[in-house]
Amino acid sequence: MSKIASLVPENLKSAKPSLIRVLNNKYGHDPEVINLTVGEPDFKTADHVKLAAIKSILNDHTHYPHNWGTSTLRNAISQYLASHFDLHYDPESEIFVTEGASGAISTIIDGLCQPDDVVLIPSPAYTLYRINTELRGARAVELETSAPDFKVTPQLLREALVKYGSAVKVLVLNYPVNPTGATYTVDEVRALAAVFKEFNVAILDDEIYADLLYTDKQLPIAKLLPDQTLYVSGVSKNAAMTGWRIGYICGPSDILKSLAKVHQAAISTTATMNMDAAEEALRHGDIDTARMKAAYDQRRKFLMNAMDKIGFRYTKPQGAFYLWVQIPDNFVGDSLAYANHLAEKAKVAIVPAAAFTNRPLRYFRISYAASLSDLKQATERLAKIFKADQASYK
Amino acid sequence: MSKIASLVPENLKSAKPSLIRVLNNKYGHDPEVINLTVGEPDFKTADHVKLAAIKSILNDHTHYPHNWGTSTLRNAISQYLASHFDLHYDPESEIFVTEGASGAISTIIDGLCQPDDVVLIPSPAYTLYRINTELRGARAVELETSAPDFKVTPQLLREALVKYGSAVKVLVLNYPVNPTGATYTVDEVRALAAVFKEFNVAILDDEIYADLLYTDKQLPIAKLLPDQTLYVSGVSKNAAMTGWRIGYICGPSDILKSLAKVHQAAISTTATMNMDAAEEALRHGDIDTARMKAAYDQRRKFLMNAMDKIGFRYTKPQGAFYLWVQIPDNFVGDSLAYANHLAEKAKVAIVPAAAFTNRPLRYFRISYAASLSDLKQATERLAKIFKADQASYK
Repeated sequence: MSKIASLVPENLKSAKPSLIRVLNNKYGHDPEVINLTVGEPDFKTADHVKLAAIKSILNDHTHYPHNWGTSTLRNAISQYLASHFDLHYDPESEIFVTEGASGAISTIIDGLCQPDDVVLIPSPAYTLYRINTELRGARAVELETSAPDFKVTPQLLREALVKYGSAVKVLVLNYPVNPTGATYTVDEVRALAAVFKEFNVAILDDEIYADLLYTDKQLPIAKLLPDQTLYVSGVSKNAAMTGWRIGYICGPSDILKSLAKVHQAAISTTATMNMDAAEEALRHGDIDTARMKAAYDQRRKFLMNAMDKIGFRYTKPQGAFYLWVQIPDNFVGDSLAYANHLAEKAKVAIVPAAAFTNRPLRYFRISYAASLSDLKQATERLAKIFKADQASYK
Repeated sequence: MSKIASLVPENLKSAKPSLIRVLNNKYGHDPEVINLTVGEPDFKTADHVKLAAIKSILNDHTHYPHNWGTSTLRNAISQYLASHFDLHYDPESEIFVTEGASGAISTIIDGLCQPDDVVLIPSPAYTLYRINTELRGARAVELETSAPDFKVTPQLLREALVKYGSAVKVLVLNYPVNPTGATYTVDEVRALAAVFKEFNVAILDDEIYADLLYTDKQLPIAKLLPDQTLYVSGVSKNAAMTGWRIGYICGPSDILKSLAKVHQAAISTTATMNMDAAEEALRHGDIDTARMKAAYDQRRKFLMNAMDKIGFRYTKPQGAFYLWVQIPDNFVGDSLAYANHLAEKAKVAIVPAAAFTNRPLRYFRISYAASLSDLKQATERLAKIFKADQASYK
């Protein structure tokens, strides 16, 4: 132990690393294991986007950009959101660029929460909301949504907002949902907005998967409650640009002015040439997104069909690239035990519900951002273990 | 005002943006003003580094890297620090890559400080230490160093460590110093280390300018107190890579394990291709640094000579690319007033001491990361205004 080890606060020392990472490190390098844990496109970034980055580098865009992001990228974001989602933000004062959507999430939670404040998180949910809340010394309260869709209802929302009162600073709404792949209908969004309207709480509206939707377009709650919503997105998922680290926050200019200070204190700015690449993706990337979405949709259908045949039950996926699958009733053990069981016996790595909630949900997440051949092989293996398990219970 | 404007905590709402940024925005776009405010190399990133980034992109290094940074970059950092500074860190457990040195600074302060803890900052200092401390709800306490060199002494250090006791979690040591350009001799570092040794406090050892030194090599305090020091650096200054956003923290593995969680929660990871570029700069960039350093040194000498002739007094610069200049005694007004005076009357933009300290220091910072011709013209203008001012006081 180093001399200054005692300086690390207890809550940080005991903070668990993301279970996704742990499993990924445990099974991701085993060539025998098919790894369906990662939440990132298996596609490469499109050539014209790569070319835009190369041009940027050749043009020596290697100096500090504006702290809010280059004005050209902010313009591209503004135009993209207007044309794709009918969302209208002023590129000068209502949009700033963050280090991936992760940077947006941490900035909002860090900026708006003080110790002991409450962040409401419909669970299951991506871990980063909870981790940032807890590191801030604030309380991450799970909204306990129900099977099969695990969507927050107006009633659940109202009860929590009443119960925690003015301690609630932020509510997270992420749809399409990681990890369930479900999303909210227009009517559901309207009903939630009607509740929100009565309360002084910020909505962290994380729509990073909004372009990967296999149903009708969804209604961003930012459209209904622009004054109360911090819209979060980025190019990682729709443009297969996870490694470039470009996301953004849009919202009321007065709030953004404050949040930009938090982001600036944390990292100064994001990288210049990466912003130029993201700009190209937003301006000319629709065809790439369409191509990738078609592939994801094919895999989604394949996977649903295969899981149906095996006998697994799951939440019907409508967006993103995840399938949320129920653990067979007669398996003895929690979701982590089942994940280890599948990895060891079937050589298929998935993410257990424990990565997304503190509740003892008997589910796991399959990422189908993987090749169809991997998915085929994986489901064959799952079929075998499922059958063997069922036989052993008899 | 937006509906949720009241959710922004008071300390964030009232947090002032960096004065450097404010002045840069105010005068940076006026073509008549020579802008000597910015702390970034005017050089472009070297071609071989740009080429490494392009290769990385062409090789589709566009996916998530390891959260601690690519292992190849961590190896390059380890080897660079060993060969350049005789510092020895294990790339697997004692180094992680951050979003610029800014990301390193915010991660250390966020990770180790709780509300009301104390961070000791020898002033004048780069603003980011104070801003991050205050956003965390902790207290930024200035160590009031004295003219002409503004270096922290063992006595000053001991007094503060005794006075604030166990509330002190971090002490910032940044040398060569931004904004004074001074640095610490080997004996001075040893004397400070002797004091530190007695206390359980982390040293944030920010040596981002260590390669831009115009005297003998300096002794990193990390070499003397590896168990107590978090060594911070990056490629922004020595390789002219500000826009790429790659920095790093080195230190005891147990502390780094905790700090990496903070950085991961904040931004997940830095960008993959940017790390590949930084790796090239560390492995093969010495010749570029030498070339730029020679140019900075020429400008430094020119500037000292010109300021001597004019009659300005300054701290003798030994590193970085800043000159710390005394405001003439008979100027009526504070450092900000003098900065505005120079910008308006002489059309030369500099940064007043107020950007680096809450003390009423009558100094300003000139950045000589500017072309020699700009510096020539700027000093001619300064000579005129200096003379006119002196005449007007008679």
